[in-house]
Amino acid sequence: MKASIVGVTGYTGIELVRLIRRHPLLELGTLHSHSTNGVALSEVYPQFADQVEVQIEPFDSEAIMEKNDLVFFATPSGISKDLVKDFASADFPVIDLSGDLRLKDPAQYKEWYGKEPAPQATLDQAFYALPEFYEEAKGNLISNPGCYATAAELTLAPLLIEKLIDTDSIIVDGKSGLSGAGKKLTDSSHFVNVNENMSMYKLNKHQHIPEILQQLHQWEPAVKTIQFTTSLIPVTRGILLSTYVKLKAGVSEEIVAEAFQKCYRAQPFVRVQPIGHLPQIKQVAGSNFCDIGFGKNPGNGILTVVTVIDNLVKGAAGQAIQNFNKWAKIDETSGLTDLPLFP
Amino acid sequence: MKASIVGVTGYTGIELVRLIRRHPLLELGTLHSHSTNGVALSEVYPQFADQVEVQIEPFDSEAIMEKNDLVFFATPSGISKDLVKDFASADFPVIDLSGDLRLKDPAQYKEWYGKEPAPQATLDQAFYALPEFYEEAKGNLISNPGCYATAAELTLAPLLIEKLIDTDSIIVDGKSGLSGAGKKLTDSSHFVNVNENMSMYKLNKHQHIPEILQQLHQWEPAVKTIQFTTSLIPVTRGILLSTYVKLKAGVSEEIVAEAFQKCYRAQPFVRVQPIGHLPQIKQVAGSNFCDIGFGKNPGNGILTVVTVIDNLVKGAAGQAIQNFNKWAKIDETSGLTDLPLFP
Amino acid sequence: MKASIVGVTGYTGIELVRLIRRHPLLELGTLHSHSTNGVALSEVYPQFADQVEVQIEPFDSEAIMEKNDLVFFATPSGISKDLVKDFASADFPVIDLSGDLRLKDPAQYKEWYGKEPAPQATLDQAFYALPEFYEEAKGNLISNPGCYATAAELTLAPLLIEKLIDTDSIIVDGKSGLSGAGKKLTDSSHFVNVNENMSMYKLNKHQHIPEILQQLHQWEPAVKTIQFTTSLIPVTRGILLSTYVKLKAGVSEEIVAEAFQKCYRAQPFVRVQPIGHLPQIKQVAGSNFCDIGFGKNPGNGILTVVTVIDNLVKGAAGQAIQNFNKWAKIDETSGLTDLPLFP
Amino acid sequence: MKASIVGVTGYTGIELVRLIRRHPLLELGTLHSHSTNGVALSEVYPQFADQVEVQIEPFDSEAIMEKNDLVFFATPSGISKDLVKDFASADFPVIDLSGDLRLKDPAQYKEWYGKEPAPQATLDQAFYALPEFYEEAKGNLISNPGCYATAAELTLAPLLIEKLIDTDSIIVDGKSGLSGAGKKLTDSSHFVNVNENMSMYKLNKHQHIPEILQQLHQWEPAVKTIQFTTSLIPVTRGILLSTYVKLKAGVSEEIVAEAFQKCYRAQPFVRVQPIGHLPQIKQVAGSNFCDIGFGKNPGNGILTVVTVIDNLVKGAAGQAIQNFNKWAKIDETSGLTDLPLFP
Repeated sequence: MKASIVGVTGYTGIELVRLIRRHPLLELGTLHSHSTNGVALSEVYPQFADQVEVQIEPFDSEAIMEKNDLVFFATPSGISKDLVKDFASADFPVIDLSGDLRLKDPAQYKEWYGKEPAPQATLDQAFYALPEFYEEAKGNLISNPGCYATAAELTLAPLLIEKLIDTDSIIVDGKSGLSGAGKKLTDSSHFVNVNENMSMYKLNKHQHIPEILQQLHQWEPAVKTIQFTTSLIPVTRGILLSTYVKLKAGVSEEIVAEAFQKCYRAQPFVRVQPIGHLPQIKQVAGSNFCDIGFGKNPGNGILTVVTVIDNLVKGAAGQAIQNFNKWAKIDETSGLTDLPLFP
Repeated sequence: MKASIVGVTGYTGIELVRLIRRHPLLELGTLHSHSTNGVALSEVYPQFADQVEVQIEPFDSEAIMEKNDLVFFATPSGISKDLVKDFASADFPVIDLSGDLRLKDPAQYKEWYGKEPAPQATLDQAFYALPEFYEEAKGNLISNPGCYATAAELTLAPLLIEKLIDTDSIIVDGKSGLSGAGKKLTDSSHFVNVNENMSMYKLNKHQHIPEILQQLHQWEPAVKTIQFTTSLIPVTRGILLSTYVKLKAGVSEEIVAEAFQKCYRAQPFVRVQPIGHLPQIKQVAGSNFCDIGFGKNPGNGILTVVTVIDNLVKGAAGQAIQNFNKWAKIDETSGLTDLPLFP
Repeated sequence: MKASIVGVTGYTGIELVRLIRRHPLLELGTLHSHSTNGVALSEVYPQFADQVEVQIEPFDSEAIMEKNDLVFFATPSGISKDLVKDFASADFPVIDLSGDLRLKDPAQYKEWYGKEPAPQATLDQAFYALPEFYEEAKGNLISNPGCYATAAELTLAPLLIEKLIDTDSIIVDGKSGLSGAGKKLTDSSHFVNVNENMSMYKLNKHQHIPEILQQLHQWEPAVKTIQFTTSLIPVTRGILLSTYVKLKAGVSEEIVAEAFQKCYRAQPFVRVQPIGHLPQIKQVAGSNFCDIGFGKNPGNGILTVVTVIDNLVKGAAGQAIQNFNKWAKIDETSGLTDLPLFP
Repeated sequence: MKASIVGVTGYTGIELVRLIRRHPLLELGTLHSHSTNGVALSEVYPQFADQVEVQIEPFDSEAIMEKNDLVFFATPSGISKDLVKDFASADFPVIDLSGDLRLKDPAQYKEWYGKEPAPQATLDQAFYALPEFYEEAKGNLISNPGCYATAAELTLAPLLIEKLIDTDSIIVDGKSGLSGAGKKLTDSSHFVNVNENMSMYKLNKHQHIPEILQQLHQWEPAVKTIQFTTSLIPVTRGILLSTYVKLKAGVSEEIVAEAFQKCYRAQPFVRVQPIGHLPQIKQVAGSNFCDIGFGKNPGNGILTVVTVIDNLVKGAAGQAIQNFNKWAKIDETSGLTDLPLFP
């Protein structure tokens, strides 16, 4: 099947190229990028030389549908909400990696993204696809979860589903490498401002907050709010979440372990660590794994959960491929079997 | 005044050398290090060549008292508790940067440090010196606070003193650069395991937890517990704390700002940021500043506070000099007026 | 075919695990490591959890030959020279990634490695396998080139073969990431000593110098000496060589380009850059590519060549797989088709 | 004396602020920056909060001369050549840290900088001030050497002056941290493109090449050309040069050592390392030192010299202060006595 990529020169776009090239069923179709029409991808990114020699073409929805079997949108927020329309009308398969189709409530999109939302009909048609929590994709307009949101939702799901925690006690302290901020040139992505530094950003304003809450409500409507913060750390790839929740009386580490095992035993990409083992970013970098470890403080009943993913793989392009696999009803791990790159 | 340093080849030891050399009243006295007797300091650390040409001498408490006016202990935990005895008996001025004299309760030391504590009499004699919170040092045996503890205590003091928060809601997510772990060679300090990585360590077991609690009790005995975690980030210098507390009903950001201002307006090294401005590690690195910023989540009443220090300066050697200045009743900023090194 | 790995817990050992798992013809056989007998590999390296669940076994040459079809030695220098004996006698296929079998002259090994050499017979039996420069491996005892040596030899081959340079003018300034120094704990691998630093090491004493010269003599016996230096840069993976040579009168950039093209046009892993384009480490990291670019200084006739490889892939484990592929007479790129990991 | 800074928001500008604040004779005068008129410096750079509370003012040469005793230009190239005119006419003291006044030949400026040069009269008036090599500054228009140029000139001076090397054999392989490239936002300063990477840039086109040659000619007119290359390494501060030269027959390491000692014995900021000790970037970072070490290859007579400086201190602002000190005829080390910041 031929896969087109819109927004191919962004970091999630080129990660899709890397993964599609490894995929047994997919091959690269047409590539599109607003800023580099007519240029070969390998001119923009020399790592592709000799291997992916494809020209970047102007965006044209008719031509894309003609030449491809599906399309990935790896665009910044505010683009795909307009560009998916033709594909959605034609019921042409779309996997959207941006935030545009994740929030069901257009008012929330407007509030958190500060832009006009997609039409309600498109939002209704979109299927929010967290692969560990659905059997079969509904429809052909798939919305891929956000990077932080993926990590936070996988962390909290077992605890909420099994009703192990006080629902108003959730605090998530998230840290991300710079690739999560994209390739845009800003003061905060200048090497000198990142290296030997750490900074918290978008306090109480990160657009993944409503996305996480929307999903948590599927599991536990009693969750009213979470405290979710995000910081930049001087690494290229990787997210580490520290999550703090208050366990209900009598909930032991063993009960927590059992809840995680129950949830993820059959899931190929979530690896629950043995009790007391906390995962590190490097043990998942370059792979589609989400590794989760935890420990309870006997003094105050607080459970600390540490969750790591590669923001560009499980947090973006890898999960998009995983969603494709489920949509295509092939082995969920197809094209995603690479081990992390360590060291 | 001549200052001796015991444990001079550790990172806090050489930072003391750097700062003492800049100090108007202090000069370097005898230098001591278990591992490098008889060697010139500049052979171990070539940055000192031509500038600090001093031999490292064997430790001998009598000789130290004879040749110096005070002594800094920059030793790992478990050393100074034994070595300070002679100095303490003689009432010779000591500033101990290790954890050995911080906990008043020897049972706690035994539990958290896993070693035999100092005698109760020595612990009683020791003065826990958080410079922003005392007028005049009591006695000549000064115990310098820990790096994480300094940041956590400065963060929480105004909130507890002014009774603005629920005392059972405190969560502190701490991150530190590698210099905080010392120069010992371990798997976790190998470049390949730190670079492009982040990891949480000593979950619920960090030895600064009882130190922080002991100090918080001075301000608010109702605090029973805190959740305090520590992670390593791939930087050399710097600590960033994210602290989460539940504000009491009706407490606004302005009230919080006023509490911080009240506490620190007259303190030269604590810089409260304007509302909504969160500090970054680089804005204090190389200096004795502690910068604090915060923001309230209107949705859930949680206050997020971000606190940054240089772990080797305000978190160790700089604060020791600050404590010396107060002890010597000279300008508190003597020798500590350097701006952060940015970039 | 089952592949055993001796020295599996070193960085090249685990890179072999990663690559063998991706290989269409190879599968993991028995794994061995002096230091971790009886432990599961995934306990030492959590990235392997659920994916490579193999116990590390004691080294036993008989058992290895019984249970496997070939063996990779990923041991530090000084080990395989003794351990290969049984395999060599039995003509059991060996690919040795260490330096033990590279130098044909045992006196040189003794001088540069400071250890007793392998017996002359073993050295004679060993085949130095730079894959771009042989058609068919001779025998079953394959010696894999060193990381720096690979980059230097691929850089200089076209220039010497086509006789474009003064043979006494070769200066190679090499830089390597830390993974090249292995996982041993030393002062020079401590994060604090690597981060924000750069240092030259083993000046005029690097053990790859005689290896490079030995190979250059195959192409041009007139080369008497090279100046070759090595520095550590604060990255995990990657080598960048800056090579300076004096072009003979009348040799233009176009002639140089033609020489490189002639040499490498048919080679899948050497990518000659367009004239004036210099490659960067990140464009090969995680892959088996060697990218080479160059430019001539019209003022002095000096050609600067920039060469980049991933020291663990093309510089070690990837090249070992490439050599296996040639030995097994299958597609040279089998298992090595991954794109670099960027960003 | 009041010192004005033009271009204060660049990295060398803020480093001047840091150093002037430490200086016994200087104090900050008016601050100027094209891009941030009317803003407080501490709003742009929070590290200055409470310490340097100065507004940035519009540039006005009359006002500057009225309110200050001298002016530093820390502007990018192409600015001061126009802006110094009024000051030069008035013989008002200027220290220019940019490249505009370094090249005596305006045609060279045009060729290497690609801009219109300063008038010949201004170039004639300017004094190229490499502090180790002049007794007394000539005039009041001082041109501060470039960062790479400083390191290269200090490296080669003793070798040329003492006539120890073949003058056509000089190869300098330079590496710099990112602060040397300034705070401009470009693809090559984006964290993701710098981290875990290394790249050579401006091959045979770096504007310090003619500056170095101009100075080398003062010592040895026979030098016709040098090969000088520059690469970016993923650190914030620091330059490391590897220099390769062919020693004349019979020149031993001891003779080289003696030449360096003769040249720099009396110089407070150049520290010649013992034979066989090569300096590292971290041993000078944050300080005004230039550390130089070397070793001879007995096989080919090539001398490798390793030279390190902090590009913002000895390579820019620190050297400007040193030049001020010599101009003002005060102790050359005034305000520059800080030890390097290690770790």
